[in-house]
Amino acid sequence: MARVQVRDGTVSSGERSVPEEVPVALTFNGTTHAVMMASPTDIADFALGFALTEGIVASAAEILSREVIVVEEGIEARMWIAEEKMKHLSARRRALAGPTGCGLCGVESLVEAVKPAALVDAAGLFSPAAVLDAMAALGPLQSLNHETRAVHAAAYFEPGRGVLALAEDVGRHNALDKLVGKAAEAGFDTSRGLLLLTSRVSIEMVQKAAVLGVGVIAAVSAPTSLAIRTAAAAGITLCAIVRADGFEVFTHPGRIALIPSERQDHVA
Amino acid sequence: MARVQVRDGTVSSGERSVPEEVPVALTFNGTTHAVMMASPTDIADFALGFALTEGIVASAAEILSREVIVVEEGIEARMWIAEEKMKHLSARRRALAGPTGCGLCGVESLVEAVKPAALVDAAGLFSPAAVLDAMAALGPLQSLNHETRAVHAAAYFEPGRGVLALAEDVGRHNALDKLVGKAAEAGFDTSRGLLLLTSRVSIEMVQKAAVLGVGVIAAVSAPTSLAIRTAAAAGITLCAIVRADGFEVFTHPGRIALIPSERQDHVA
Repeated sequence: MARVQVRDGTVSSGERSVPEEVPVALTFNGTTHAVMMASPTDIADFALGFALTEGIVASAAEILSREVIVVEEGIEARMWIAEEKMKHLSARRRALAGPTGCGLCGVESLVEAVKPAALVDAAGLFSPAAVLDAMAALGPLQSLNHETRAVHAAAYFEPGRGVLALAEDVGRHNALDKLVGKAAEAGFDTSRGLLLLTSRVSIEMVQKAAVLGVGVIAAVSAPTSLAIRTAAAAGITLCAIVRADGFEVFTHPGRIALIPSERQDHVA
Repeated sequence: MARVQVRDGTVSSGERSVPEEVPVALTFNGTTHAVMMASPTDIADFALGFALTEGIVASAAEILSREVIVVEEGIEARMWIAEEKMKHLSARRRALAGPTGCGLCGVESLVEAVKPAALVDAAGLFSPAAVLDAMAALGPLQSLNHETRAVHAAAYFEPGRGVLALAEDVGRHNALDKLVGKAAEAGFDTSRGLLLLTSRVSIEMVQKAAVLGVGVIAAVSAPTSLAIRTAAAAGITLCAIVRADGFEVFTHPGRIALIPSERQDHVA
């Protein structure tokens, strides 16, 4: 995009690559469930991942068909699910919306928001070097970010096999949903690897990681306290502030080799 | 929070300050409209700002009462609006949810998502130094970020008066909603100042800035292409990648003094 630069006291004109952002309508059986602002790549993966992480379907097979339509106003990701599933989804949406004041009250909604993530049962033992190598491998693969320096990535890494899937998006939640879709398509045994995130870790990122079924999250930035509690409850090892010189482990350190057992009692 | 650190090849135990994140249920007349994961500060401001930026009310006066209730599961921000307004909101929610597949279709939802922001009519002329001074003033005031290095800030700055209001949150959208609430409470003439953002600029940030009524956005990180088009259409000057040595202007450069007029034709 064209822009004027004011830098070091001088004014110049030129161009800067900026990330695109488009509205993506996620529809089930013809009704819009959500509209997300997203990077316009990997939309079929995004749709599948969203359906999985939102708990609308339990497997890729439950989506009878998927169609991505680019229109002037944005992108429609159309999914069809069995009539029985759709009835359930519509009932859930009606309960949330409420006809005249008898939808979910505040406390019910709060309980719904922090409902526990699925318990992850991943064995796996990773050396600290594997965590650092994984993050180092991610950088060169973030092609959209190389261009714009303004998008997040989520990736799945297995020691010895490298980065097996990667997704980028202006939104970190979308990037992870895209990755969940890619992993489901590919049928990875995600209990063998690491989830890499370039972003901070909030509760929703942990909830999505639990759907992915990964035992270890390695993130560049910091977690929230609720994300830590959620990872602890879900049996996920949460590594964060992963930099070239090391990282910090907030939950279940047993999956990181060389952490002495007396250290393991220290955290959740 | 307790954590194990693996850094420079050595393992140590200790504590790290991490940001809190709690579910906040925003209810109108007893029905939950949305649950947002947010930092548990300035919740009354957040509720007001959310109601304004979502277009549920047009002014603070239209909220008949506000109450913030901390419960075990999170925080309820209860608002009451006139019965007539509530009927309108319920109808809108029913249309979005749809009873059995006749809610908004994909294209309708896409149009809804990118509807144009209000046109901002702010005069104001700011020197490049004012933009840099504003951002320099922000850093020392980000108290939550000093503690955790993991939260965003949104602030309102007027040359000669400094930072008049600031809000922090784990989510950049929430930080801006909190600021909109604070500005509405204080009754600032926001056409005189700058909106400062520590984050990237997506379309939703520009839409909220238009509700705030500010003529200039100055952000640390990059904008998306849709954010640029939306700022151009809303009459907002969008400065981004604001660093100590300068910044870039993507739209309406006329509000930045010393940008020669031939440069002004270059951008939107």
